[in-house]
Amino acid sequence: MCGVFAVSDADHAARTVFLGLFALQHRGQESAGITAVSPTGILCTHKNDGLVAEVFKPEDLDRLPGRTAIGHVRYSTAGGVNEANVQPLTARIGGKPMALAHNGNIVNAEELRLELEDAGTILHGTADTEIVLHLMARSRKSDFEARLCEAISRIEGAFTSIVLTQDMLFGYVDRFGYRPLVLGQLDNGWILASETCALDLVGARFVRDIRPGELVSIDLATQQCVSRIVDTANGQPDALPKRARCVFEHIYFGRPDSRLWGMSSLIKRTQLGEALAKDSPAEADLVMAIPDSGVPIAMGYSAASGIPYQIGLIRNHYVGRTFIEPAQITRNFRVKLKLNPVREIVAGKRLVVVDDSIVRGTTSKRIIEILREAGAKEVHVRVGSPQVKFPCYYGIDTPKRRELLAQTMTLDEMRAYLGADSLAFLNESTLVKVMTTGLECEKDAPSQWCISCFNGRYQDRYANQAVEDDIGGAAAAPGVNA
Amino acid sequence: MCGVFAVSDADHAARTVFLGLFALQHRGQESAGITAVSPTGILCTHKNDGLVAEVFKPEDLDRLPGRTAIGHVRYSTAGGVNEANVQPLTARIGGKPMALAHNGNIVNAEELRLELEDAGTILHGTADTEIVLHLMARSRKSDFEARLCEAISRIEGAFTSIVLTQDMLFGYVDRFGYRPLVLGQLDNGWILASETCALDLVGARFVRDIRPGELVSIDLATQQCVSRIVDTANGQPDALPKRARCVFEHIYFGRPDSRLWGMSSLIKRTQLGEALAKDSPAEADLVMAIPDSGVPIAMGYSAASGIPYQIGLIRNHYVGRTFIEPAQITRNFRVKLKLNPVREIVAGKRLVVVDDSIVRGTTSKRIIEILREAGAKEVHVRVGSPQVKFPCYYGIDTPKRRELLAQTMTLDEMRAYLGADSLAFLNESTLVKVMTTGLECEKDAPSQWCISCFNGRYQDRYANQAVEDDIGGAAAAPGVNA
Amino acid sequence: MCGVFAVSDADHAARTVFLGLFALQHRGQESAGITAVSPTGILCTHKNDGLVAEVFKPEDLDRLPGRTAIGHVRYSTAGGVNEANVQPLTARIGGKPMALAHNGNIVNAEELRLELEDAGTILHGTADTEIVLHLMARSRKSDFEARLCEAISRIEGAFTSIVLTQDMLFGYVDRFGYRPLVLGQLDNGWILASETCALDLVGARFVRDIRPGELVSIDLATQQCVSRIVDTANGQPDALPKRARCVFEHIYFGRPDSRLWGMSSLIKRTQLGEALAKDSPAEADLVMAIPDSGVPIAMGYSAASGIPYQIGLIRNHYVGRTFIEPAQITRNFRVKLKLNPVREIVAGKRLVVVDDSIVRGTTSKRIIEILREAGAKEVHVRVGSPQVKFPCYYGIDTPKRRELLAQTMTLDEMRAYLGADSLAFLNESTLVKVMTTGLECEKDAPSQWCISCFNGRYQDRYANQAVEDDIGGAAAAPGVNA
Amino acid sequence: MCGVFAVSDADHAARTVFLGLFALQHRGQESAGITAVSPTGILCTHKNDGLVAEVFKPEDLDRLPGRTAIGHVRYSTAGGVNEANVQPLTARIGGKPMALAHNGNIVNAEELRLELEDAGTILHGTADTEIVLHLMARSRKSDFEARLCEAISRIEGAFTSIVLTQDMLFGYVDRFGYRPLVLGQLDNGWILASETCALDLVGARFVRDIRPGELVSIDLATQQCVSRIVDTANGQPDALPKRARCVFEHIYFGRPDSRLWGMSSLIKRTQLGEALAKDSPAEADLVMAIPDSGVPIAMGYSAASGIPYQIGLIRNHYVGRTFIEPAQITRNFRVKLKLNPVREIVAGKRLVVVDDSIVRGTTSKRIIEILREAGAKEVHVRVGSPQVKFPCYYGIDTPKRRELLAQTMTLDEMRAYLGADSLAFLNESTLVKVMTTGLECEKDAPSQWCISCFNGRYQDRYANQAVEDDIGGAAAAPGVNA
Repeated sequence: MCGVFAVSDADHAARTVFLGLFALQHRGQESAGITAVSPTGILCTHKNDGLVAEVFKPEDLDRLPGRTAIGHVRYSTAGGVNEANVQPLTARIGGKPMALAHNGNIVNAEELRLELEDAGTILHGTADTEIVLHLMARSRKSDFEARLCEAISRIEGAFTSIVLTQDMLFGYVDRFGYRPLVLGQLDNGWILASETCALDLVGARFVRDIRPGELVSIDLATQQCVSRIVDTANGQPDALPKRARCVFEHIYFGRPDSRLWGMSSLIKRTQLGEALAKDSPAEADLVMAIPDSGVPIAMGYSAASGIPYQIGLIRNHYVGRTFIEPAQITRNFRVKLKLNPVREIVAGKRLVVVDDSIVRGTTSKRIIEILREAGAKEVHVRVGSPQVKFPCYYGIDTPKRRELLAQTMTLDEMRAYLGADSLAFLNESTLVKVMTTGLECEKDAPSQWCISCFNGRYQDRYANQAVEDDIGGAAAAPGVNA
Repeated sequence: MCGVFAVSDADHAARTVFLGLFALQHRGQESAGITAVSPTGILCTHKNDGLVAEVFKPEDLDRLPGRTAIGHVRYSTAGGVNEANVQPLTARIGGKPMALAHNGNIVNAEELRLELEDAGTILHGTADTEIVLHLMARSRKSDFEARLCEAISRIEGAFTSIVLTQDMLFGYVDRFGYRPLVLGQLDNGWILASETCALDLVGARFVRDIRPGELVSIDLATQQCVSRIVDTANGQPDALPKRARCVFEHIYFGRPDSRLWGMSSLIKRTQLGEALAKDSPAEADLVMAIPDSGVPIAMGYSAASGIPYQIGLIRNHYVGRTFIEPAQITRNFRVKLKLNPVREIVAGKRLVVVDDSIVRGTTSKRIIEILREAGAKEVHVRVGSPQVKFPCYYGIDTPKRRELLAQTMTLDEMRAYLGADSLAFLNESTLVKVMTTGLECEKDAPSQWCISCFNGRYQDRYANQAVEDDIGGAAAAPGVNA
Repeated sequence: MCGVFAVSDADHAARTVFLGLFALQHRGQESAGITAVSPTGILCTHKNDGLVAEVFKPEDLDRLPGRTAIGHVRYSTAGGVNEANVQPLTARIGGKPMALAHNGNIVNAEELRLELEDAGTILHGTADTEIVLHLMARSRKSDFEARLCEAISRIEGAFTSIVLTQDMLFGYVDRFGYRPLVLGQLDNGWILASETCALDLVGARFVRDIRPGELVSIDLATQQCVSRIVDTANGQPDALPKRARCVFEHIYFGRPDSRLWGMSSLIKRTQLGEALAKDSPAEADLVMAIPDSGVPIAMGYSAASGIPYQIGLIRNHYVGRTFIEPAQITRNFRVKLKLNPVREIVAGKRLVVVDDSIVRGTTSKRIIEILREAGAKEVHVRVGSPQVKFPCYYGIDTPKRRELLAQTMTLDEMRAYLGADSLAFLNESTLVKVMTTGLECEKDAPSQWCISCFNGRYQDRYANQAVEDDIGGAAAAPGVNA
Repeated sequence: MCGVFAVSDADHAARTVFLGLFALQHRGQESAGITAVSPTGILCTHKNDGLVAEVFKPEDLDRLPGRTAIGHVRYSTAGGVNEANVQPLTARIGGKPMALAHNGNIVNAEELRLELEDAGTILHGTADTEIVLHLMARSRKSDFEARLCEAISRIEGAFTSIVLTQDMLFGYVDRFGYRPLVLGQLDNGWILASETCALDLVGARFVRDIRPGELVSIDLATQQCVSRIVDTANGQPDALPKRARCVFEHIYFGRPDSRLWGMSSLIKRTQLGEALAKDSPAEADLVMAIPDSGVPIAMGYSAASGIPYQIGLIRNHYVGRTFIEPAQITRNFRVKLKLNPVREIVAGKRLVVVDDSIVRGTTSKRIIEILREAGAKEVHVRVGSPQVKFPCYYGIDTPKRRELLAQTMTLDEMRAYLGADSLAFLNESTLVKVMTTGLECEKDAPSQWCISCFNGRYQDRYANQAVEDDIGGAAAAPGVNA
């Protein structure tokens, strides 16, 4: 997972991108980078490992002149930190410089990698992004946009990316639209951003979401913005493209003050909590959250159930930002470093403990232990999403299937393992119902979400994966796309 | 303001101190340091600028062997960053090595500094701490503890400090007990810590608060812990010492999961919010907090008023940890970097906005603007503490009196300046009442708090300061100590 | 200019390469790197900007296991420091990893670069070396060695390079043999090195020089070493290849304790000084050198002329290793920083001042001023090489033609400009005679040297350059290759 | 050993000191520092570990404004690198700031250290220099110069130091004058420097040597320079002070282009070589030096003996500047890293190998082995100084007595150990004769040298040391002071 941001025709483009990336920092803490195009058409890049404010000092921004710039923050995913993977990536294509900020997972990357190497291409990094560059470089099309479309049509997966040349700015979204990308306007120029919270910070006006399969092309000379749907590898673009919005963007990944696909993430989380309370009530003295992502869900649960919401765990915000090495601290201990119970609140009480999701379950188990040690009388766990039974191939960093708690245990086995007095997950149908309510944009289009991590129904090459790879006999619930 | 921590007779003392400092990180982000005494009696120190987890890598901890260690985290205060000020400070006193971790402000520092220089002492840093070392070095007493007592008796102000020698560990608190220092037990050894949240993290048992004017001496060979009250400069120790607990430790500075002077800080904050709601009600649609310190106060306000509590501002936790330079970002903009409103929550609503305190008022003013821009219909500001009218000489980093909003304006002028529809502060008498309820320890002693920043009644050399320095004609409210 | 070194079948290959590079440090101070092939066939690389002993700490060498390794030191040439240029370069060719340490200048680089980009290759750095990798990657040959030969046959210029794969080690020299590359033996394994001084340091036995156009292939499993002459682009290899040994390797660039093409560099320099004394005698009290490269030439001059040799200038060896920025020190001043006269030696004396060469003349002019200020009565400048009138395209860092002193002035104008009482250069014919005497290897082959910087007779695409580019009417002396 | 430099009334004092230190870099490579006094009387210091050009970037010099500055380069001596030892040291004395750059060894440091600690002083570093500051701080004199004189009178040993205050610049030399300190003039201001080579670089005029026991005081307002002889601890200053110039300053330590105590170091070394040739001739084919310090001695030997001088060993100047760790390279190997023989020169020859001194003998032994391996027929070692039998207490970094080769072996045992065909040292009487010839300054004073490392006759508290500590029965030769 990553964050991307671009601005055109701004007084100091690099500073604006800096702010945009700062607002998107939660989407990637591993590295940050900005490429700006100077008045004389030179593309200047500054990028490095680290947080946005660590990578960019004022003097670095001063060395990135010009009115148009793009930026990227990178999340630490499997495959290791590699300098060659820090974005934006730059290259000369057809003799002209370009830069690419790519947020996504290419599911046919391995195939394309072998094809390219076989044709004599030398690949440097391990990231998918480089593949896009080489596909463009090897295209026999003469026009840059045509090369870009050819490259996009060759890649499959979940991606929202931004491309900068000396005279054009492009933004595109994969044909299923897994990840958000929004278009905004700032004075006379344009903004492209992963989330609306970045528009808020730079003071830009929200225009609309970029659609699935859409490529927007902004002419830097005229600021004219043109849209087209890119042909897929298979031929014609779908008249009404199928959607596969990642539901975890709302549940966990996006910032709560962002409006994702037209809906407030904070309000959606609250509504999930309300629905959870109705589906799975509990007899308890207080509702508390596992901070931070569980907080709005817990507040919704409290509102719908009438059980008062209180703060039972204090989060140490210095953890997670600082690297404490394994040798120093055991994994178990890491939970304690991060969360400390408020004994005076939880002691002797029957608690509803609300989390956004349970993946491996190790953290949840440890938190329940900590709450019991602090004197909790009963612990009723309520989870704001269904059971995660299948791996994600589209950028959410989930473990292998056999490490997923819900894949290997029944509900009651899970409850026992976690040490809870009761345990309930949100129903898949309730989730879909809540998430579809208020989905105003594209009313006539099928309003699908990607919930493949819950039901194993993937869109593409993994479509049959769930069945073949099935090891636990988990009967996949009927997909919402069916 | 700083944090201190010590442990004796632990399997790996430096690692335990590392964890203790990690839990106390909120008390100081400027620098961190640990001194451990090795089995052969060598005092090894590692310290540097930065956060605890930045300063200490596992290999640094490995180089600090031994069963007893002390540590310090330092807050960025006026006077500038100076390498010579990073603690613990070490010195040879009477030919033997010692280390000192000092949290405090010495109000007669300038006098002592001149006296020492006049006697031929060379002072290196600008911090008060060094003075304690030189007072000990110049003492004509032969015994180390006697030298320490003589030094303590010479200094005035607010301090809680820890001293380590080859065979002893000492902790002491100034005679008014402004700042907390707690004694804990871990296996066979002892813990000294600024707050109980540090005991929780290392798994230690809380024993008791260190009393005003108390010096505890732990013999590292026997783990025997002896307590005494140090004579003041003026003569005999007070039978029943006057107290001057800093009320801001509860309102803002301490961690909400800490138990300060026997009372949960989170619960106290909630109670302040409840009292505030009763004293200063408001007609509104929702109660929201300025995060993070305003949250429990706002929740208390909501509970007492029945107006629902909601999340109206999202805090970007990447700010405040990263240094964004003035040239880059204006001060006003910094608020926007840190807090973004949730438009869908606040638009069209009458808001009660709860903060813990108002000092300069610039941040509050900007937040109200931001909320109005996001569509708030009415903004009723409620503050969980009285008007701050006087500077703090004891470690809270308040500005000069003329920069204090409440010093220069009437309540209604403040309301107008902030752009609020209504504005109310907690009454001083309500504050004292809430804070005194449940103050179980030392029941028979006068249960005073230092609230001099509200009423100008200082304990010592500044006792008459409020009147002399008075520039705004602010009639100091009757002090609670009177 | 650069230095390369390789070893096969050594107990700790990376440490041996470290020593070899250390001995070759004079050939490149900008960056250093080593690639080793581990017992399991993994190629591990460590490289960075800086001197060999700065780049490699013991732990870095420990992370480079295996019995075979190659290394590179890079000289700071025009084009700027660029991380992507630090060698060895690594890539996957035909699915297998390889590393390349390349010392050389490719004169058809720009052509090849355009051809590659046109075919869809993305080039990252600005160095020629990358081109070799891409030529190999794009070759349609299936065998690695065949791909390498194809790449070598496409490039023109001066180069001596080393290639490492999982099971082979290669060394090759361009068809004119501009730069030295020697083969040595260490126990059961082989050494390839730019100069013999590196063999001395690691205790290896000198076997022979690698011949022009030769590719040696060492099988890492059997240590069998096979030699072949690579076909040129034009067709068949020459039966008796023309040579173009760079004469500056002996005069200035090589270490004096190296044996270049079978001849001691120190002795050759001494002989040049002797010949210079015979051709261009002087009436003087003492002979002195401009250190360090002028010293053996001056000693030869002294021996042949009978005028005593003395130390008249002391060199500060801390200059040249430390970066003193332009803003700090003027170029003129830099000479004074580096060389200080011994007043007691030079005052009142008639001096013969011997230098190895004069290029721009600015340094020489300044030294003569300094000697005059120190009291020198007469200054007779004698130069151990002919007038440098033409630029070098093969790796010696000479300036543009119009900055070459000898291009723009007559001999007497130069004398006047330098402020010398007399000035003489070595005759081109004398140079060739001295350099050909004792050239034992390949007796039957034409024993040519590249002296194109003196006479403008280049070997290849620049063959007609001298006439076309002629701006000063300098009648090029008959070349030794004619 | 260290180097010191100061300038007054210069346009950019810090830049001038930078150059001065650069010229004195050979006197200390461990750390460098400069203190400048700003126009408003503020003393600004920049100092760090490393070489002068590493420690000072142009921006660092820009931050050191003012017309007067002092500087220091520090040699790596026993006691370890310690940040607190990097000079200049600064302190407030009598409420006013000062800085001290001290080159020297205080032989009564331990006594003074105990006395100070006993009186309640806290010492931070391990270097002697700090003691001087504390002696000044504790002085009851009111005048700064009087405090300085009192401090100087309390310390014994070898030192030449510079002190800077807001309005004065001081330079002083110990009463025996072990180390050089020269006074120069630059425009209207003054220079103090360890060696004349530093005057040369900044273009200053040599005025005179500072005399033993002399304190010069320069008034920064008027540039008036006043001289006085400081009273010793014992009472009156000596009318004709005894001298103890360190003879190793000429033989090894000073730069050859410096004029030490009025005599060219290069010429003195040459004369020592001439005298050595007369005293200890050899039958040989060539004379060669162990570079660099042996070169002028070897050239003198060659001139006097008529045996030609040649370069037999090439020194790698990258060694000694780069830290190659013990684990990486054995001590024996270090010699090979540094020096490589020129086989073509030495093979089959009878060599006279000239060195400046032999201390432990391990390096010499290894060099002789290397020369034999390169084919030398005979090796006749000639040493330009007498046998080093006693440790130096005054700053030359000699080992303990039992590690001194000449202390534990007879001349023939040494020859056998070194593997030489013959071995001769310079006679002590010849040394004294050569060194006294031309000693023009202070003609009427006793012209003594400190040669205690050869004869064990120390000046002060170690006067009887030689006898007491005698372990080898070495009959100390009559001292030149006798």
